[in-house]
Amino acid sequence: MNELLKGKPVADAIVEALKNDTTVLESKDIIPCLALIRVGEKSDDIAYERGIVKRCDDIGIKTKKVELAENITQEAFLSALKEVNEDSLVHGILIFRPLPKQLDEKVIEVSIAPGKDVDCLHPENTAKLLTGDESGFVPCTPMAVMEIFKHYQIPLEGKNAVVLGRSMVVGKPAALLLLQENATVTVAHSRTKELEKITAGADILIAAIGRSEFVREAHIKEGAVVADVGINVDEEGNMTGDVHQDEAKSKAGAFTPVPGGVGSVTTAVLAKQVIKACKMQHK
Amino acid sequence: MNELLKGKPVADAIVEALKNDTTVLESKDIIPCLALIRVGEKSDDIAYERGIVKRCDDIGIKTKKVELAENITQEAFLSALKEVNEDSLVHGILIFRPLPKQLDEKVIEVSIAPGKDVDCLHPENTAKLLTGDESGFVPCTPMAVMEIFKHYQIPLEGKNAVVLGRSMVVGKPAALLLLQENATVTVAHSRTKELEKITAGADILIAAIGRSEFVREAHIKEGAVVADVGINVDEEGNMTGDVHQDEAKSKAGAFTPVPGGVGSVTTAVLAKQVIKACKMQHK
Repeated sequence: MNELLKGKPVADAIVEALKNDTTVLESKDIIPCLALIRVGEKSDDIAYERGIVKRCDDIGIKTKKVELAENITQEAFLSALKEVNEDSLVHGILIFRPLPKQLDEKVIEVSIAPGKDVDCLHPENTAKLLTGDESGFVPCTPMAVMEIFKHYQIPLEGKNAVVLGRSMVVGKPAALLLLQENATVTVAHSRTKELEKITAGADILIAAIGRSEFVREAHIKEGAVVADVGINVDEEGNMTGDVHQDEAKSKAGAFTPVPGGVGSVTTAVLAKQVIKACKMQHK
Repeated sequence: MNELLKGKPVADAIVEALKNDTTVLESKDIIPCLALIRVGEKSDDIAYERGIVKRCDDIGIKTKKVELAENITQEAFLSALKEVNEDSLVHGILIFRPLPKQLDEKVIEVSIAPGKDVDCLHPENTAKLLTGDESGFVPCTPMAVMEIFKHYQIPLEGKNAVVLGRSMVVGKPAALLLLQENATVTVAHSRTKELEKITAGADILIAAIGRSEFVREAHIKEGAVVADVGINVDEEGNMTGDVHQDEAKSKAGAFTPVPGGVGSVTTAVLAKQVIKACKMQHK
């Protein structure tokens, strides 16, 4: 028994539910809108932006591109941010990161309107993530992992979950979301000793360490559920995850592929948070 | 080999260092001051207040008692809070909790000045705790545990640490502080299955589950370091921790007693945060 936890069916189900939401909102003359703030022309940002716009179009969410010059000043950036913060027709704001060096991310984080902060930059949302207050917004990638688990009805309560990685973008929020579901959660990382022993005890393993095919057969418990958050692209443009797929296939009970796994759910999750923000603003 | 990790020497060392700080501050005509906001006359609060005042007196920190009636309105409470927020001679603010029901803690949390919030109520400090930003304030009890580890030179990097409990007051912050020190951290709790197996793998075990003498010999790895955060008082007034002391004695390599362990370091840690707040405000 080895189940491939593909992202597409998860994203499709989220999209279907959101289409119902946008229909209801439209009947009240509300068009959800996501502002996308992009500085410069990085190809990664443009590709992500394209994916987001396509997803939002499909669901009935308007997108508003805010394109800023690579050499924009902090002041001008904050002024552009203020404009979307105050625009009552904009419900969610996504800022592509990392930002160029002249911009101070710390200042920007506290300047985004917390109620529109669909990617969890503002300390108010970070704090809600820690306290487990569900009125906040959660970073999209760990939330995509949770949506996959929910869709495939993976039981989490009382399970031993190991999160490999402790970033603010994936590792820490994933650990907190799993804790919220009553899993017993271990955060392992680059300084962890006898890592194989720890991951091999995991019923649920989330790989977010940013190293291509790092997780091998020996890391995986027989029958475990493995979610691979890694996106590593080699010189020839081939994409690999943080998990060695063939070895996961022979050992795990279920695992997410790369590509076609967690990454393919993130824009749907982002859209879900825009709808949540929109509903909260119109309550 | 079995070391008793008493709190007093830790508190004494912190106090000595802080006395140097207050002497230097005094030479600049700065007297650090902690405001203590107490609603009603709960004996627990009064006892804690007495301990804080004594500690602060000894160090050279002024205390300002703000005593409010049990039936105070939200509005009047916020007005009293605003007063100490705005008082430039007050550097730290501690609010005794839990507060009576008519007061909305959520509103109060965001109303305390973040720079004076020495007990980590405000979301800005909660967020800093999660991101690992050391310019914030940390809840006193988990910080007391870390001070004990530091004082007794307990190595944490790469160690397997298990935190038993996931409250915002102890469990979650303790896990984050341990992660910050590069431990591999597991959060276990009431829904954890095969708990003994998990805690028995811990090099470092923090018991914060709020159940008298819950941690027995079988939970403890031979030679482990055990920090007991529990304070349980029975009908006859006897105080016990969350760890069975005799069994810890026979199994652990080192453990904190109750009483005389973690609890006896918290007021020193609180004083340390007041000095930190004072220095930040006068930078």
